[in-house]
Amino acid sequence: MGLVVPLDESKKKGAARIEPLVALVSADMERVNQIILSKAGSDVEMIPEVAQHLISSGGKRLRPMLTLAAARMSGYEGDGHVKLAASVEFMHTATLLHDDVVDESELRRGKLAARMLWGNQASVLVGDFLLGQAFRMMVEVGSLDALDVLSTAATVIAEGEVMQLAAAKNMATSEDEYLAVIKAKTAALFAAAAEVGPIIADNDPVRRTAFATYGTDLGLAFQLIDDALDYGGNSADLGKKVGDDFREGKITLPVVLAYRRGTEAERDFWKRVLEKGDIRDGDLEKAIAILRSHKTIEETIERARQFGETARAALDVFPDSDWKAALVEVIDFCIERAH
Amino acid sequence: MGLVVPLDESKKKGAARIEPLVALVSADMERVNQIILSKAGSDVEMIPEVAQHLISSGGKRLRPMLTLAAARMSGYEGDGHVKLAASVEFMHTATLLHDDVVDESELRRGKLAARMLWGNQASVLVGDFLLGQAFRMMVEVGSLDALDVLSTAATVIAEGEVMQLAAAKNMATSEDEYLAVIKAKTAALFAAAAEVGPIIADNDPVRRTAFATYGTDLGLAFQLIDDALDYGGNSADLGKKVGDDFREGKITLPVVLAYRRGTEAERDFWKRVLEKGDIRDGDLEKAIAILRSHKTIEETIERARQFGETARAALDVFPDSDWKAALVEVIDFCIERAH
Repeated sequence: MGLVVPLDESKKKGAARIEPLVALVSADMERVNQIILSKAGSDVEMIPEVAQHLISSGGKRLRPMLTLAAARMSGYEGDGHVKLAASVEFMHTATLLHDDVVDESELRRGKLAARMLWGNQASVLVGDFLLGQAFRMMVEVGSLDALDVLSTAATVIAEGEVMQLAAAKNMATSEDEYLAVIKAKTAALFAAAAEVGPIIADNDPVRRTAFATYGTDLGLAFQLIDDALDYGGNSADLGKKVGDDFREGKITLPVVLAYRRGTEAERDFWKRVLEKGDIRDGDLEKAIAILRSHKTIEETIERARQFGETARAALDVFPDSDWKAALVEVIDFCIERAH
Repeated sequence: MGLVVPLDESKKKGAARIEPLVALVSADMERVNQIILSKAGSDVEMIPEVAQHLISSGGKRLRPMLTLAAARMSGYEGDGHVKLAASVEFMHTATLLHDDVVDESELRRGKLAARMLWGNQASVLVGDFLLGQAFRMMVEVGSLDALDVLSTAATVIAEGEVMQLAAAKNMATSEDEYLAVIKAKTAALFAAAAEVGPIIADNDPVRRTAFATYGTDLGLAFQLIDDALDYGGNSADLGKKVGDDFREGKITLPVVLAYRRGTEAERDFWKRVLEKGDIRDGDLEKAIAILRSHKTIEETIERARQFGETARAALDVFPDSDWKAALVEVIDFCIERAH
């Protein structure tokens, strides 16, 4: 069980746990980064400006690394995985640009969101541009199965975002509904990113299923930790302000669990702040105190650990290798961000 | 020259000139409409609501009809053209949803814009959903060439919209810059819609070029007339308010030409209203009077006629047929809207 480590050790090791994967994919990733820079270019001046703002803002590029690793672990020796990895990152970037408009976010990765600098309009349109470029790259690779998986993911992500919008400010949201949202809005792209690796190698169904499961459960763990961090991390670590979900009325698992177990006074509090959006000084601190009293942040992290275990188990079909070990470490990396 | 007809006759005939095409594609179009209804569906409640609002609002479905006609004229006898036609309409619908957010429009096709009923957020996300569904349908058809043409069009459309955004409120916009914008934002999808017809038939390069040219020039004519109508049509005919472009500071050809020829006082007027957005009572009427005094609305319509002629000439490679005659009538339909 690599997942349960003493806190002190995990604090030191957490961020380092992505390093084995970074090292293994570094040559391929350099080519992905070149393609990203080149395909974010356009004669239309504003497009590379907006795209670069987000692309250069230090995302970890976890999703394209999954594509590269899954292709290599499936014995792929061609070039297509590099373009597919860049497509996956563009799909992610497009989603972030559109999300910022939808959420009215002010910050993204610790910098001003693109919409604050160039307006909502540019965020919508540059997102559309990047999505178009993503599909063009997939077409160049020429795998209809990869196109199928990634275009389906695009649809599912949008459905997940709409579900989240519909569930916002609604304290009746159940745990199942919350899980359906994060499976669609986050886990679908992790799953597709990993699954296209074996698809362009030899389309082996066992490996496709293994990587799709690994991606889904890693994505669920990742999002659960993100949602826990929104009530417990700190701004410098997070690259975004603590309490964003709170201010936007997003109903995430720590709140779903606390609402179910809460006193009547606590339920009234959640309704006032999240449903009515009537947030006063000290309310975020009070919310965090309630979540802590019911231990729902810890419980959310524990659910993430369980999904992490399923992700790890999905890799059992592969023989031991540096690649497999690196993908297991990535699970720990995602979860240990919470400490 | 079917294009120059006495005004009285054109008023009666204009709307009827799309009828021959409507009749020829009617059986195929019924299947397109069924697919559109089915693929706009989702378990996520808000998606079909928003999509239906726009889909049922009485667009002419000109673009998917081009796909159907071009496929049939190329001897295609399969099923794929129906799905490609639905994809084209979804791409168009997604663009409209995102445009309404970008332009802050209140009306679309004479009804409240979706964003006024469900918010900008839903317009962005349902647009993304429809775009994803469009690509999934293209993948089902399985033609990588069709996917290439349509995904490239998606990118070009976004570039055109960003160009338009950058040119807005800028009286220095040249005629060439204006034409580049409308070629990208409007003509690219007309061209792609027509070109995928021969692509799925037998990919004959002569027919591909012919239909791409027909689509491009028809699209340019269509947009020029739209821009002329924004200063001359009336709200009941248009399905949108006259003066939308004016209020949004869009620099269209009637204004580009009038600014170039205007007196100093007129130029000051255009700068105040379009660059500064300082619009007062009576300014729209004054703008229309200036455009009329320089005859730039008529001249814009005349440019549209010229592009219409090029579109007609592109069809010369085809033997005479009911299909060809119907596509020529469609050119007249697009242009005679202006009267």
